[in-house]
Amino acid sequence: MTGLKFINSADRDFREQLDALLSANEQLGADITATVGAILEDVRTRGDAAVLDYTRRFDGREVTAAAELELDAGALKKAAGDVPPDLHAALEDAAVRIRAYHEHQVQESWSYEDADGIRLGQQVTPLDRVGVYVPGGKAAYPSTVLMNVIPARVAGVKEVVMVVPAPGGEVNATVLAAAHIAGVDRVFTIGGAQAVGALAFGTETVPAVDKIVGPGNKYVAAAKRLVFGIVGIDMVAGPSEVVVVSDGSGDPDWTAMDLFAQAEHDQDARSILVATSDKVINAVSGSIEKLLPDMERADIIRSALENNGALIRVKDLAEAAQVVNIIAPEHLELAVADPDALLPAIRHAGAIFLGHWAAEAMGDYCAGPNHVLPTARTARFSSALGVYDFQKRSTVLGAGRKSIAAVAKTAAVLARSEGLTAHARSAEYRLGDTKK
Amino acid sequence: MTGLKFINSADRDFREQLDALLSANEQLGADITATVGAILEDVRTRGDAAVLDYTRRFDGREVTAAAELELDAGALKKAAGDVPPDLHAALEDAAVRIRAYHEHQVQESWSYEDADGIRLGQQVTPLDRVGVYVPGGKAAYPSTVLMNVIPARVAGVKEVVMVVPAPGGEVNATVLAAAHIAGVDRVFTIGGAQAVGALAFGTETVPAVDKIVGPGNKYVAAAKRLVFGIVGIDMVAGPSEVVVVSDGSGDPDWTAMDLFAQAEHDQDARSILVATSDKVINAVSGSIEKLLPDMERADIIRSALENNGALIRVKDLAEAAQVVNIIAPEHLELAVADPDALLPAIRHAGAIFLGHWAAEAMGDYCAGPNHVLPTARTARFSSALGVYDFQKRSTVLGAGRKSIAAVAKTAAVLARSEGLTAHARSAEYRLGDTKK
Repeated sequence: MTGLKFINSADRDFREQLDALLSANEQLGADITATVGAILEDVRTRGDAAVLDYTRRFDGREVTAAAELELDAGALKKAAGDVPPDLHAALEDAAVRIRAYHEHQVQESWSYEDADGIRLGQQVTPLDRVGVYVPGGKAAYPSTVLMNVIPARVAGVKEVVMVVPAPGGEVNATVLAAAHIAGVDRVFTIGGAQAVGALAFGTETVPAVDKIVGPGNKYVAAAKRLVFGIVGIDMVAGPSEVVVVSDGSGDPDWTAMDLFAQAEHDQDARSILVATSDKVINAVSGSIEKLLPDMERADIIRSALENNGALIRVKDLAEAAQVVNIIAPEHLELAVADPDALLPAIRHAGAIFLGHWAAEAMGDYCAGPNHVLPTARTARFSSALGVYDFQKRSTVLGAGRKSIAAVAKTAAVLARSEGLTAHARSAEYRLGDTKK
Repeated sequence: MTGLKFINSADRDFREQLDALLSANEQLGADITATVGAILEDVRTRGDAAVLDYTRRFDGREVTAAAELELDAGALKKAAGDVPPDLHAALEDAAVRIRAYHEHQVQESWSYEDADGIRLGQQVTPLDRVGVYVPGGKAAYPSTVLMNVIPARVAGVKEVVMVVPAPGGEVNATVLAAAHIAGVDRVFTIGGAQAVGALAFGTETVPAVDKIVGPGNKYVAAAKRLVFGIVGIDMVAGPSEVVVVSDGSGDPDWTAMDLFAQAEHDQDARSILVATSDKVINAVSGSIEKLLPDMERADIIRSALENNGALIRVKDLAEAAQVVNIIAPEHLELAVADPDALLPAIRHAGAIFLGHWAAEAMGDYCAGPNHVLPTARTARFSSALGVYDFQKRSTVLGAGRKSIAAVAKTAAVLARSEGLTAHARSAEYRLGDTKK
């Protein structure tokens, strides 16, 4: 057998089995909070000197001046020129598609007059300066640079500062090429909690930003949690997940490969098949057994499938949608004959892929939608990273002597009921009433 | 003198003085995190029994069964019928105005086809179930009920659950009336960290929600921070703030009263005047001295003004806008002759009030915009509570054999550059290429 857990919705304890599967994947971080907190405090008080210390210690670099930690614009341009032409073209193609999609998310300011003549509105403005954390080393993903930087640029953020650790002085050239193509303003080769601290508090060299986005290891995640409130953060992402819903109308090899594509990320990744018949379960299991041995990352895939994967048998597509809504997966492939019929029943999912040709891998890289998505059931209340994460909304209220009268009266009554009489008097002044 | 700090933008160390003023107001909560964490864990494991224990202990109530903690719908209806007619009318008027404003914030799903024929979109869905925390006792604000519940209802949230502590068994009747008018589904008379835990994890009696919103004391704030990720939370709010920008065109008594209205909340509240002349500073100072002795909450106001207030002298309105953008205030009154000319220069503020008649008190209660706003400089990256906080966005990608070809090729190139070959093969399957 494939080693994947099998769960049948006909079982009396189906919901308990499903809950057990989902809760097994929780991340803990309390143990490292103190360590990370100390690094942050050190960066806050000592600035560049602290950043240099940690960079020497954790990244094994021989740096003595903070200026050595910044790459010049020429380095990015050179990297972009040095990548192979097909890769450069692919990065450019992805950037164009991602930009086009995200332009649909731009929110505009609005205002209207109510029946009293009061002007009510919402003024939408971009953030001033954003920090993008990009992991270094083996998990260096140029696609991450595009997905985090482009929405900020589309929102109109004035300055985008990227940090990327350079263990032993090395930075992935494709990451730098992606930074050039996405339009990063400044790049510092720092990482870990010290980089998060530098972006949150600012140092002599690194400018303080208003929001920090981008993935990182557990130290980076813990640091982002701790600086939340001083700056904005995107989200604290857990392991990646995919649910593939199959009605048997697709090629089981494709489904198996899509499950592998999720599982190859790391052994915590989660791949779940939700299928409407035993026949589909058996066919996909057969494809998994057949294809797995030839995969370059077979060990990671096998480990992820056995630890966190599942084959879930449901009685029909309506029940499949219910199961999906409980899981609230990061990625959802509706690998069914009529995905549009199923779409309205999906309430909770980060990204939805319709039909057999729309594989998650297209969304991960280049089709346009963002690949920074809510994990661990947080799609119940949160969304893909988007332009809206780099814009904010100020409410606007404008009024004159006549238009304010009715509202001022209501405000005064409510304020007095709450015992806030300066509020009431402030409203009553506008009514020409200064007696009380 | 008025006891307010005076700061002049002409001083060489103006920015340092401003930073010192703003940093003085930071909230700490690390000391209570352990206490709150233990309560949450107890509620998670023991459910109703733990909630009952804490409610007996902290709220002084003699309750023995969890069912006693829920109010029936009749209780809300009765409360609404019992409030004085003018207050009932004011609550209804406020609800209508708040609903009308928030309906402008509803986001709709969208989709389009790109040049390749790929369908790209965003499916917007409401959260399933939301919990609203309403403080009890002396800080019981019916306006808070309206401001938190109505945006959720407008978003289409299916179930809104309210919790409000009832010290000694008492709940503010106006709060219950507001809950009835706003359309709350269920009310539990519980509070503190135990109420946050019950909403986050669910108990036998209290249903688990997807997001918790609403203000509370430092224990509630710490609990919300800790359950963030299991559920969504709105924001952890600090003390309330107002900045009034004055060019001398208004009545200094009005400005003084607006500063009082903020300061009367509590002694941590912050009221700042930014004025373009010494004459305005002196006139408003005179009004403060004249009016303060007659205020019902004079002691709180005086204390807040002395602790956190400031009179800031700037050279002109352009510099006033710069100072405002550094402060990024929760509330901003542009009490100037031509507020529209100044508005485009304002980048960071939670709520903006234009002109002499648009006092903050109108926005606090009833004009329409939300009064749950970013504090402590977080308006640099966050926004008023709104319908968008109760909606989420799933990305949607649909494609067929022909439309996916170009994207699949780009995805395969990028995936191979990242070493993720299952991703690449998943894309290549869609190109009809299963060789590699």
